[in-house]
Amino acid sequence: MRTADVLVIGAGPCGLFQVFELGLLGLNAIVVEALEQPGGQCAELYPQKPIFDIPAIPEISGAQLTQSLLRQIAPFKAQFCFGERIEQLEPRGERFWLRGNKGTEFDVAAVVIAAGAGAFQPVRLKLEGIERLEGDQLFYAVKDRAQFQGKDLLVFGGGDSALDWVMALVSEARSVVLVHRSERFRAQPALVEQMHALCEQGRMRFVAGRASDYRLSDGRLTAVELTDSEGRTRWQEADSLLVFFGMVPDPGPVKHWGLAMDANQLQVDTERFETSLPGVFAIGDINTYPGKKKLILSGFHEAALAAFAIKSRLEPGKKVHLQYTTTSPLLRRRLGVDADS
Amino acid sequence: MRTADVLVIGAGPCGLFQVFELGLLGLNAIVVEALEQPGGQCAELYPQKPIFDIPAIPEISGAQLTQSLLRQIAPFKAQFCFGERIEQLEPRGERFWLRGNKGTEFDVAAVVIAAGAGAFQPVRLKLEGIERLEGDQLFYAVKDRAQFQGKDLLVFGGGDSALDWVMALVSEARSVVLVHRSERFRAQPALVEQMHALCEQGRMRFVAGRASDYRLSDGRLTAVELTDSEGRTRWQEADSLLVFFGMVPDPGPVKHWGLAMDANQLQVDTERFETSLPGVFAIGDINTYPGKKKLILSGFHEAALAAFAIKSRLEPGKKVHLQYTTTSPLLRRRLGVDADS
Repeated sequence: MRTADVLVIGAGPCGLFQVFELGLLGLNAIVVEALEQPGGQCAELYPQKPIFDIPAIPEISGAQLTQSLLRQIAPFKAQFCFGERIEQLEPRGERFWLRGNKGTEFDVAAVVIAAGAGAFQPVRLKLEGIERLEGDQLFYAVKDRAQFQGKDLLVFGGGDSALDWVMALVSEARSVVLVHRSERFRAQPALVEQMHALCEQGRMRFVAGRASDYRLSDGRLTAVELTDSEGRTRWQEADSLLVFFGMVPDPGPVKHWGLAMDANQLQVDTERFETSLPGVFAIGDINTYPGKKKLILSGFHEAALAAFAIKSRLEPGKKVHLQYTTTSPLLRRRLGVDADS
Repeated sequence: MRTADVLVIGAGPCGLFQVFELGLLGLNAIVVEALEQPGGQCAELYPQKPIFDIPAIPEISGAQLTQSLLRQIAPFKAQFCFGERIEQLEPRGERFWLRGNKGTEFDVAAVVIAAGAGAFQPVRLKLEGIERLEGDQLFYAVKDRAQFQGKDLLVFGGGDSALDWVMALVSEARSVVLVHRSERFRAQPALVEQMHALCEQGRMRFVAGRASDYRLSDGRLTAVELTDSEGRTRWQEADSLLVFFGMVPDPGPVKHWGLAMDANQLQVDTERFETSLPGVFAIGDINTYPGKKKLILSGFHEAALAAFAIKSRLEPGKKVHLQYTTTSPLLRRRLGVDADS
């Protein structure tokens, strides 16, 4: 059972900045993130593209924004729990119990949902019943490359991930076939050239098309039917599938926690950014209120006000004064900038 | 008569960022600032002190923050009007007429009050009736140093400004006396040393004390009574007074525009950040709403939502879509980052 003052769901920009605002008020946090790294949509969807509307930062990439926020919150030594998606949330007396999809349990005094559009999930291969092969013959990420040794591998996708793994596994697998819907790739041109060179050397094959059916024998995958752009089909022997169709956010479990929602957004007030369940707050793209705009800078403001609301919830009756980082010895000490005071 | 889509009162961080958010929506702005330079409290009260709570900026000085914002809003080519305090604001049909203390008139479609704690004003010398000498024998800033030539000058204050001007005018004035309440100065030690050296050379005098009375002859100042810390008084001949007691914000004229207020703050809603007078908005430290915290980052959020509200006011019936600077060709063109599109 992991504990902290506050559990923050999501390590996107708003979740990270929430750690900072809590830290200034003397509260510690544990951040639980479905992806394996911080940054959320910024890092997942547009790590290298410039963002121009972060106040006082004329231009910054999603990756740089994430790094800057991590540097800013470093003094507060938050706990991080990556690759885990919170599935259950229940009030237990004055506190909250939460459980992740890997079984980790959490006990905290307040929760901030900063899950953006939801936890990122791989886009699935759309073939009826194929999900039963997941983790055995069907994979959306490579955890252990040794498991592809000697396999007849089909890799699906046209981005960097698909091509990177084709290169990495071409020597280990018994055979590799890359399947992508067209001759046009999102991957870097250099990777595409390398792939074509491997095809010319006869070390792998590329098929422009999509998976349209599959065949099992004794419950195990033996072949996949591929259909090309002109509708021609052929069966391709395979015992392992690696699929890289990208990630999409899925609001997922949040919908089942009994919190008041408007479409897929959590309803909050604009004073505390608290959901319909007292003690559970929501900031960033996942919340809604009159006038809401899905802007990173709005999430930052929401994080600040939620932190004050949490502080007053945890220390009822004690007035929370606004202090400034520029002048407050207490805040400067918490930030570690007045080591001598 | 100067015109723009929107007049922004105050060139502090929030007023500057307001220009950015309006610019993204295709609206132009004129910024009217009581001080002679942008930056507001950041630049006036703590230009060199670090601020730690601007999101994604682990540490920045008030001066740097101002420079970053100016760089960020540069693409939108706002008009600036420095050293002018807006005194009058009146609705005229669908538009607003405003007038500054120097007589400049403005005609705009909407107004955003981002005046912080108010327009900065010099702390006045507290002697009854002495304000009638202002601009003639009593000054709170030096506009034309030639006017002190051959004068018997009293300089009040213990900060950099006071000592800088003592050094600058000691050769031009007939006599210079520096008056400060104690032997302790806020000014840089090097300046204080220089001043003591000039005293030793007999080129000026320093009196630890304060002005307690003054004498007029034919309506003109001839002497000031100085009282030291032990209550002893003496009369000092003088025909010119230069006072540097610092600047304080004064909500001033805003109070007389008939807008709903709570203490010295303008009441706004949290959807549009609009005051009780439709078309007049208020952001940053000057506004109040449930949960309001006087944080720069909250003002940034308020600026964004106010910009959307202004856009919908100016183009009623037209839906304002939220677009992202990372992906929208329109926003990127407005920012000047896609010169080729």
